[in-house]
Amino acid sequence: MKLFEVARYVHGLLYGKKSFNIANIQPPDDANKDDLTFLFDPLTETNAGAVIANKKIKGKNGIVVEDPKEAMFILLERLSTISNKRRKKEISSMAIIEDNVVVPKSCIIEPFVIIKSGAKIGNETYIGANCVIDRDTSIGKNCEIHPHTVIYKNTKIGNFVSIHSNTVIGKEGFGYIKKRGYKRFKHIGGVVIGDFVEIGSNVTIDRGTIGHTIIGRGTKIDNLVHIAHNVKIGTNCIIMGQVGIAGSTKIGDNVVLCGQVGVKDHITIGNGVTVYAKSGVFTPLKSNEVYSGTPARQHRAVLKALARLYKNL
Amino acid sequence: MKLFEVARYVHGLLYGKKSFNIANIQPPDDANKDDLTFLFDPLTETNAGAVIANKKIKGKNGIVVEDPKEAMFILLERLSTISNKRRKKEISSMAIIEDNVVVPKSCIIEPFVIIKSGAKIGNETYIGANCVIDRDTSIGKNCEIHPHTVIYKNTKIGNFVSIHSNTVIGKEGFGYIKKRGYKRFKHIGGVVIGDFVEIGSNVTIDRGTIGHTIIGRGTKIDNLVHIAHNVKIGTNCIIMGQVGIAGSTKIGDNVVLCGQVGVKDHITIGNGVTVYAKSGVFTPLKSNEVYSGTPARQHRAVLKALARLYKNL
Amino acid sequence: MKLFEVARYVHGLLYGKKSFNIANIQPPDDANKDDLTFLFDPLTETNAGAVIANKKIKGKNGIVVEDPKEAMFILLERLSTISNKRRKKEISSMAIIEDNVVVPKSCIIEPFVIIKSGAKIGNETYIGANCVIDRDTSIGKNCEIHPHTVIYKNTKIGNFVSIHSNTVIGKEGFGYIKKRGYKRFKHIGGVVIGDFVEIGSNVTIDRGTIGHTIIGRGTKIDNLVHIAHNVKIGTNCIIMGQVGIAGSTKIGDNVVLCGQVGVKDHITIGNGVTVYAKSGVFTPLKSNEVYSGTPARQHRAVLKALARLYKNL
Repeated sequence: MKLFEVARYVHGLLYGKKSFNIANIQPPDDANKDDLTFLFDPLTETNAGAVIANKKIKGKNGIVVEDPKEAMFILLERLSTISNKRRKKEISSMAIIEDNVVVPKSCIIEPFVIIKSGAKIGNETYIGANCVIDRDTSIGKNCEIHPHTVIYKNTKIGNFVSIHSNTVIGKEGFGYIKKRGYKRFKHIGGVVIGDFVEIGSNVTIDRGTIGHTIIGRGTKIDNLVHIAHNVKIGTNCIIMGQVGIAGSTKIGDNVVLCGQVGVKDHITIGNGVTVYAKSGVFTPLKSNEVYSGTPARQHRAVLKALARLYKNL
Repeated sequence: MKLFEVARYVHGLLYGKKSFNIANIQPPDDANKDDLTFLFDPLTETNAGAVIANKKIKGKNGIVVEDPKEAMFILLERLSTISNKRRKKEISSMAIIEDNVVVPKSCIIEPFVIIKSGAKIGNETYIGANCVIDRDTSIGKNCEIHPHTVIYKNTKIGNFVSIHSNTVIGKEGFGYIKKRGYKRFKHIGGVVIGDFVEIGSNVTIDRGTIGHTIIGRGTKIDNLVHIAHNVKIGTNCIIMGQVGIAGSTKIGDNVVLCGQVGVKDHITIGNGVTVYAKSGVFTPLKSNEVYSGTPARQHRAVLKALARLYKNL
Repeated sequence: MKLFEVARYVHGLLYGKKSFNIANIQPPDDANKDDLTFLFDPLTETNAGAVIANKKIKGKNGIVVEDPKEAMFILLERLSTISNKRRKKEISSMAIIEDNVVVPKSCIIEPFVIIKSGAKIGNETYIGANCVIDRDTSIGKNCEIHPHTVIYKNTKIGNFVSIHSNTVIGKEGFGYIKKRGYKRFKHIGGVVIGDFVEIGSNVTIDRGTIGHTIIGRGTKIDNLVHIAHNVKIGTNCIIMGQVGIAGSTKIGDNVVLCGQVGVKDHITIGNGVTVYAKSGVFTPLKSNEVYSGTPARQHRAVLKALARLYKNL
């Protein structure tokens, strides 16, 4: 691919050698003189021969764009469309689909999948190898359920949802009553996942005891996250890797929980809250504020406390 | 279902409209006027038309019981018995059961399961789809091994044990010797899991290097927990989500480790200890005390330190 | 096995009853008078009848060796060779191997495995039951890919690599652009794993957005670890259980990250760094130092701050 071809996709201003031949697209650190890179910050150093940035970079060939991140998004979309070898469009004869199941012909069902009685799958949905879809589950259209996902009964998944490998949706929650040892509550609730939700690998989302565990439309969940029974997460939230949210907690819209954050059970986090990585949230959090620490407090208070603690050390 | 029918199961005192028709059973927040809810705290607000609490709630229909949590337990057990569509009672022809394996006819073995030579499964045990049961493993009676569980060799599981999807029991532990790079110790120990233990999803329990990793009778383990080689956990412990316990550590009976707690290797935690969420335990802990923080200390000391740190901030 | 036979393997000095008959090899705590144990610290108490330590232990039978840990390593290697029932050497007819795949006859491929078009597997490599090996993946020789591992496309794995069950390598990273909700970047990068790397269970290693995620030769990764897109880890590192490393971070050689450590995105950790358990790393770390706490600082500063905080409490 040549630089002027890239410029066409990302609608930018070309400079330098327009027919620069791109060997690879690489991050700034890894790129060498035959490569193209993206500079989100125009001051980043790189050996790349060609750069996409929000201004001209001296000594390079390049493309000036308003938003290099968006340009990267556009180019990767484009490249992915060109190079994507499609999955085999078929319902494998090595999948076990029980009676009383809806699986449209437009679906891709890979081998060693089990879909149990009463399940309904929407059009154009992909179910990867070895997935287990339990009875009475519903999955919308255009979803991607990657290999080795397990979806227990009473789960209702919207459209355009993607779930990655080894994630478990809808098992019984960790709720016990103590009477001669612990006895687990039977769970009659389910899990409801909105449209455009994306869920990473090795995530666990437990079903409600009574009532449902709910993940709001557009929310994105990273790998190894634990979401307990009856948690409700709003729309367009970002839940980063290894976060844990305990039972019945409510999280508003547009909330960002950074990596390894833990949230106590039965509390409420307002809209637009950001909680920085590794924090432990033990109390309700007000909307549109930034929190950190364990127990989590307003981030500016935590910074002051740290300054005090480390003064003259 | 009508309110007076519920009262029969939970042995409570009816008041209000006895033939109140229950649309759904919902948590207090989600319930509306056609629903029944449980109030563990009688002051909790709810729109539910019917409530189960430990006293009469003004303006509602309801049932007074001594312990609403127990009433909920009883009712869910009952409803679950009524509604539970049983799994297909069969040993799937799509499972691979090697020679020299004991699998009673009363078991349910789902498709794409592998049970290797020397394994023994007890009566009435369920092995979900795609499980791998390695050689010389023993699993007791009335167990539930959910889909996609992997059980390595040298694992001995008691009766009435449940293990959820994507959990891995008995892989080699993370023990190395440094000699021209790291070399892993071969592990000749196993994992021993007591009766009535319950283990969540995406849990890892490694086998002993020499000697066994042991989980005591009645202990309950939540999702995404890591238990390293040669750890010993006593009876009736509660190990919450994302806890990690490093190698050879000993944990007493009736211990509660809250979410995301980490425990150092080769230490001892006494009986009846509670460690609050997110704590890091680096030293032995005395029985029957409450600990928090990193490094974990007695909780009341941690509270004092936090008060000092945040004074006038 | 008798004590003098063990002495032959570990090249040590026998004392006491040379024909002592070893019932079991046990950790010091579990051993009784018929057992052999290893004492890494010669002052450790044990009921074992026979001990391997770096000096004579009064009242015991035993073997004196320079390094008891190495003696344990040697003996376990030896015992494991004796007792190891080999896996069935075959390519299962219940595996699905697509066209245009290289699988030498010396491989073991268990049932319910899928290997997709374009994948290449090296000699003597083991692929456990239910693994999914996506298209255009390459796996070297003498690897152990344990049951239920999922390897997405664009993954390149070296020789003598072991990966344990329910680990997911090469899914798309958690990188989004915000434009009317979040949209995920397509990922055209891959994952590159060096020779002699070992990866535990339920680990997630995401592929690069552009450029690769790289795990250096000889590095060992424990269970439930999350490694995000474009992370680069050097050689001979130890990454303990439940560690999380965010996107594009670079980690040097011989680094030790203890359990539950979290590392921010886009930072650099030097060679020979140790970060103690539960720390949160938010800033670059200089080589050959020891760090702890959240945010992580030099460990001796953290100890001083803790002393100040808890003084007279």
